[in-house]
Amino acid sequence: MASSLANSLVITGGRRGLGAALAQELVSALAPARLVLTARSVDQTFRSQWPAATLVEADLGSAGGVERAALSIGEVVAAAPHRHGAVWDAILVHNSGSLSPLGEIGQGMVGAGAGSGPADLAKNVFDSVSASSQLNIASFAALTAAFVDSASRRPAGLPRSLVLNVSSLAAIQPFSSWGVYCAGKAFRERLMSVLAAEQAELDGGGRVVAFSYAPGPLDTDMQLELRSSERVSKGVRDAMAAAHREGTLVSPAASAGAIARQVAAGPSALAGLGDGLRADYFDLVPQR
Amino acid sequence: MASSLANSLVITGGRRGLGAALAQELVSALAPARLVLTARSVDQTFRSQWPAATLVEADLGSAGGVERAALSIGEVVAAAPHRHGAVWDAILVHNSGSLSPLGEIGQGMVGAGAGSGPADLAKNVFDSVSASSQLNIASFAALTAAFVDSASRRPAGLPRSLVLNVSSLAAIQPFSSWGVYCAGKAFRERLMSVLAAEQAELDGGGRVVAFSYAPGPLDTDMQLELRSSERVSKGVRDAMAAAHREGTLVSPAASAGAIARQVAAGPSALAGLGDGLRADYFDLVPQR
Repeated sequence: MASSLANSLVITGGRRGLGAALAQELVSALAPARLVLTARSVDQTFRSQWPAATLVEADLGSAGGVERAALSIGEVVAAAPHRHGAVWDAILVHNSGSLSPLGEIGQGMVGAGAGSGPADLAKNVFDSVSASSQLNIASFAALTAAFVDSASRRPAGLPRSLVLNVSSLAAIQPFSSWGVYCAGKAFRERLMSVLAAEQAELDGGGRVVAFSYAPGPLDTDMQLELRSSERVSKGVRDAMAAAHREGTLVSPAASAGAIARQVAAGPSALAGLGDGLRADYFDLVPQR
Repeated sequence: MASSLANSLVITGGRRGLGAALAQELVSALAPARLVLTARSVDQTFRSQWPAATLVEADLGSAGGVERAALSIGEVVAAAPHRHGAVWDAILVHNSGSLSPLGEIGQGMVGAGAGSGPADLAKNVFDSVSASSQLNIASFAALTAAFVDSASRRPAGLPRSLVLNVSSLAAIQPFSSWGVYCAGKAFRERLMSVLAAEQAELDGGGRVVAFSYAPGPLDTDMQLELRSSERVSKGVRDAMAAAHREGTLVSPAASAGAIARQVAAGPSALAGLGDGLRADYFDLVPQR
């Protein structure tokens, strides 16, 4: 595409799986003037793929990693040029996340070797849910807050900015043995709906658009974990294995491409999807 | 009431506000053979109110507090007598929780004195959301897991057990400047729906019922915080102040009594409320 459609683009967990596909497809569709990708580890291969990008090595389950990512986000959003023809100013894509702890609520959530008394069980679940919440919830809130602040300080007259939350069908539908994942995605979608409500109360409808995207059942490492973990309930494991065998999983490129096209169409197009707050891959690409 | 309707009852945060009212109303309606109340601090007044109860001093935002509470829950659930006429075996009421961090997503979430750069802002939000998640989410998951395990080990033939999640309208409706609270309640309701799905897959429909209760706008310290905190958006603050002034807030006793009557009616009655997963005070007590 000839014209730049976004002034800056940030993607967390941009090295592998859906994050890598989102980087490819969003860069292709939006030609952002500035690009930030975070990853748990940044190696030479990753660098050679994105020579012009700011690559941030950050574990978003830790305060230090979140600070480092926020610093880059703030700098890049603030300094991004005001490109002619941009439909978005800044875009933050929350892609990074984890499945753990998997397991049915009760002893299913801890390994067979763990102590089995109620105190041991509670301690184990408390620690694993606390760690999961730091990565999937606290870093999500923290980077959203820093991004909203940075985007709100940009000069008047620029287009809106976007927080795109990579969500899941699990945010709105319960899956056995995936409770903490389902609940974490519900947390994120709810925070997005509050952000949308807060922005709607501001002059001119605010500077930031909040949107959640459920990318469909993807053929990624996360799926591999779901169909092979002993902690996943048999029903879910069998369904995932069948989907893999029958080739009905969605490729990361196809799912990333579908949302990239909607994002490239601009704020009004996104607001027209579903209830204006979330869309599922299967809404965007109806199946035959 | 003459007959015992529950073998054991556990309430977190049972010393003040809605928790104290739930203790009164549920004990009155269900006459549990064993009672556990947790509180951040246990003093002589509290002890004299509940001489026959097990009172656990525990900060449920810490692993140690959660372990201590889980140990008492496990012991009491396991050892509770099998009372004739019981409609529930064990009941766990998740009442404890916090509002913080309040504030609109962005600089609104941190105090005026905090550093204002993106890294400082993100660090501040990460730390406060992590702490909030430990209390409102991780301890919730941990005590639920320990309770479900203990309840599932009880002899066959006993009535079902109940996890009652004190929720909020905020779980299903966005409120500006309350984002983390709204999202935390959404997390809890989603985890309850997964627990319900998991139990439904077990033989005989499982041993544990999961239910969420939104108690209405209560006249408690939490409301006081909402109508007086500078971090709460003006619209919400004004609405809460008006409700307080006009006397339309619900008393903790009225709200606790409404859900206690439904719980005392047993598992089938609860399953018949709303979608079988949640009810709001105003569903139970229609307003004129």
